[in-house]
Amino acid sequence: MFVLCDGKGWIMDASFFENVKSKDISLPEQVAEQISQLIIDRRLTCEDKLPNEFELAAQLHVGRGTVREAVKLLAARNVLVIRRGKGTFIARHPGEVDDPLGFAYYPDQMRLAMDLLEVRTRLEPWVAAVAAERASAGDLERVRMACLQVEQEVFSGRNHLKRDTEFHIRIAQCTQNLVVPKLIPIIIYSVELFGALNGNALQSETVAEHRTILEALCARDAKSAERAMEAHMEQNRRELQSIMQEVKKRGSQM
Amino acid sequence: MFVLCDGKGWIMDASFFENVKSKDISLPEQVAEQISQLIIDRRLTCEDKLPNEFELAAQLHVGRGTVREAVKLLAARNVLVIRRGKGTFIARHPGEVDDPLGFAYYPDQMRLAMDLLEVRTRLEPWVAAVAAERASAGDLERVRMACLQVEQEVFSGRNHLKRDTEFHIRIAQCTQNLVVPKLIPIIIYSVELFGALNGNALQSETVAEHRTILEALCARDAKSAERAMEAHMEQNRRELQSIMQEVKKRGSQM
Repeated sequence: MFVLCDGKGWIMDASFFENVKSKDISLPEQVAEQISQLIIDRRLTCEDKLPNEFELAAQLHVGRGTVREAVKLLAARNVLVIRRGKGTFIARHPGEVDDPLGFAYYPDQMRLAMDLLEVRTRLEPWVAAVAAERASAGDLERVRMACLQVEQEVFSGRNHLKRDTEFHIRIAQCTQNLVVPKLIPIIIYSVELFGALNGNALQSETVAEHRTILEALCARDAKSAERAMEAHMEQNRRELQSIMQEVKKRGSQM
Repeated sequence: MFVLCDGKGWIMDASFFENVKSKDISLPEQVAEQISQLIIDRRLTCEDKLPNEFELAAQLHVGRGTVREAVKLLAARNVLVIRRGKGTFIARHPGEVDDPLGFAYYPDQMRLAMDLLEVRTRLEPWVAAVAAERASAGDLERVRMACLQVEQEVFSGRNHLKRDTEFHIRIAQCTQNLVVPKLIPIIIYSVELFGALNGNALQSETVAEHRTILEALCARDAKSAERAMEAHMEQNRRELQSIMQEVKKRGSQM
């Protein structure tokens, strides 16, 4: 898409409409793309309010109804947030959605969980090693807090799985890599699913393993952090296999 | 969310509405969740048509307008596809969206590209090794085809970057892991971006490197496939760095 900003309105490259026509996308989709490009070009953030429907309609030479549909599309995709009576704002993390790969719709959740664990086993020990090397003092403090919060949930008998994911995200943030913390929630998707089945059987192991990882990170010992994470992944694998056997025994289908 | 199917309609667990209330989500969002859960529970696929608005409204005890809004939300998220005059269908890959992590909205695209490459360098050589071990004859044929298509684009002076991504996805599919081929388009995001800047400087290197990877896969030589992919990543890294220096020199901002 080619949209040029002239500071007041937008001038569209002639090739834009040819492009659009050949792709056969709806008018609200086209307008959604233009608004999305506006956010990118002007580097708008969650502090910024989108111009109102009237202004956008006038600038884009389309009806208000089309603008409204385009805004709804972008809200559904978490690019915009509509606040009743306040206006439309840019989302905090534009374009980031829950379950972005549609894992919930996969028919074979067991196989998905095994395949996710294969990817985690490849990535997370490396993440832990890099984290040990690059973490700031503040990063480590946040890992420690997340570790404590998992323990609190476990000791008070509550479900600790959300906190567990947070612990792994906090470690990923220590790498200073923009992408790694975003990948963790995707590849850790199965944790909640299988935690629910597993009935918290391995909570004490989780607490001990998390502690070992935390200590290695604080000691900035990359090799130990990597090994501790490997052990944690191996424990997860054994857990997942025992759940799969249990499910098979029950003869029930996931 | 708790929705029980009784074969005719849906019976909702009482805790569902409490849940909804506490989350403060809109009615169309609630209905979208219910439709989404219906797709999951009944294992509907892209062959399946969604019941029409009247039926859904009656089953869910909401107005047709709400159903229409919910369907639009799910269409915006690529869970449903609305075909004019034909009805609403389940998407081919429900819930999978372009740029699912919202990378287009990142202000520092250079840093993003470097960080993506760090992840690729960790993952893709491993993917190539696993691919060499697990690929079927059909998988290898598809890698070979993708390799040829990249070469055709390069030799005819066209942009080969879409085909390049496809080549890497085809290798990922050889792993038989459900998740790996889905991660490739995410972590390869920068290829198109920097290909555009780079002006196809390294096409002959790309062709030669792809060939080496393909040969290692066909020989089912995991070690060589891994090393060939490492070399390819290293070449990408050098390329990216030279682009970054070029951009700095020009004093322009990405």
